[in-house]
Amino acid sequence: MTEVIGLSAFAHSDLPTEEVERQQEVYDALTDAVRGLVDATIRSTVPEERIRSVEERVRALTEELRSEQLPGPFGIHYNDEGRSWNWGNVVVGRRNAIAPPMELLERPGGGLRAQVELGAAYEGPPGLVHGGVTMLLLDHLMGEVGSDGHRRVTMTGTLTGRYAAPTPLGPVVLEGWIAREEGRKVFVEATLGTPEAVTVEAHGVFIIPSWA
Amino acid sequence: MTEVIGLSAFAHSDLPTEEVERQQEVYDALTDAVRGLVDATIRSTVPEERIRSVEERVRALTEELRSEQLPGPFGIHYNDEGRSWNWGNVVVGRRNAIAPPMELLERPGGGLRAQVELGAAYEGPPGLVHGGVTMLLLDHLMGEVGSDGHRRVTMTGTLTGRYAAPTPLGPVVLEGWIAREEGRKVFVEATLGTPEAVTVEAHGVFIIPSWA
Repeated sequence: MTEVIGLSAFAHSDLPTEEVERQQEVYDALTDAVRGLVDATIRSTVPEERIRSVEERVRALTEELRSEQLPGPFGIHYNDEGRSWNWGNVVVGRRNAIAPPMELLERPGGGLRAQVELGAAYEGPPGLVHGGVTMLLLDHLMGEVGSDGHRRVTMTGTLTGRYAAPTPLGPVVLEGWIAREEGRKVFVEATLGTPEAVTVEAHGVFIIPSWA
Repeated sequence: MTEVIGLSAFAHSDLPTEEVERQQEVYDALTDAVRGLVDATIRSTVPEERIRSVEERVRALTEELRSEQLPGPFGIHYNDEGRSWNWGNVVVGRRNAIAPPMELLERPGGGLRAQVELGAAYEGPPGLVHGGVTMLLLDHLMGEVGSDGHRRVTMTGTLTGRYAAPTPLGPVVLEGWIAREEGRKVFVEATLGTPEAVTVEAHGVFIIPSWA
């Protein structure tokens, strides 16, 4: 069942939260395996016959998964207990092998923080995190900060990143906080970097839509 | 063999361009298959026993690919004919299943354009492209525009996106061009949207490093 709230489609589900969390573990394991395959596809140096053979078997597995599937993207599901799950989300989705995945934690003093491990699949310049990936992660974290723990809906207005230094592949830490609010505008600031040093600073304006 | 140029590691290769392109087709096919698996992992509704069974077989395929592999990320390889290949790049890499991949084309009037198809794996809000994905693609295209067809090295200084409207999943078009240059600063402008309408406008300052 799908209902439209504002611009977005949310699907109501009868699954109890406990069952959602049990299923999540099953899917986590598959997604983790696919994440490994994405990395190995980039780095493998096995002979071409084996590349071709793996390709055929990957296609067969995909067919098997597709024998029953959602007609489109995953969207956001929610149940009567107020639990929601966006397992297809490209940054935090538990069924999306593109997502590092990034897990959001409370930040002492307010806002949110996260730590992710970025490997070969997030490369831009050799050995470095793609600058656009840093913006992808910052955009997500800052949007969540702006929504103040989903207590309100916000939409990104503008987002600016200042690249102070390159970000090496490896462990990456982020934090974001609300700098101030003016009417429907929420001003969010954030940083991304290695555990030792900030490499990207960002600020964004998030809008509380008039229908919200 | 690896040499360090500025901040980055580039690997010299003896492969003739013709052979690089032949190999690229073999890897393209595997990457395309893995991209399908990423999508199916998000959308499949097959019973859990099959999810678990697919997971095991994905892990076995990954092991097979990993039996011989590069010790780290792919980086950029180049040969004596001036051909270079960054197959691991997260936006354009031909061996990276995260990359849509985005192919850059000349834009009439100068700059670059691209068209990509974004499916379930690029979702943010339900049915919509994640705002951060739009920044990821824009960052890459704009960096390439700033480097003026790799005739010079540029590094991103700042990047700003203005989200004018949501971007539905599906076909997405981008274009970017140099607005002006001042000394070592290159000002790039760009848009992203559906084939019908612009949804994100961006501007960025790209820096030509003093060592370049």
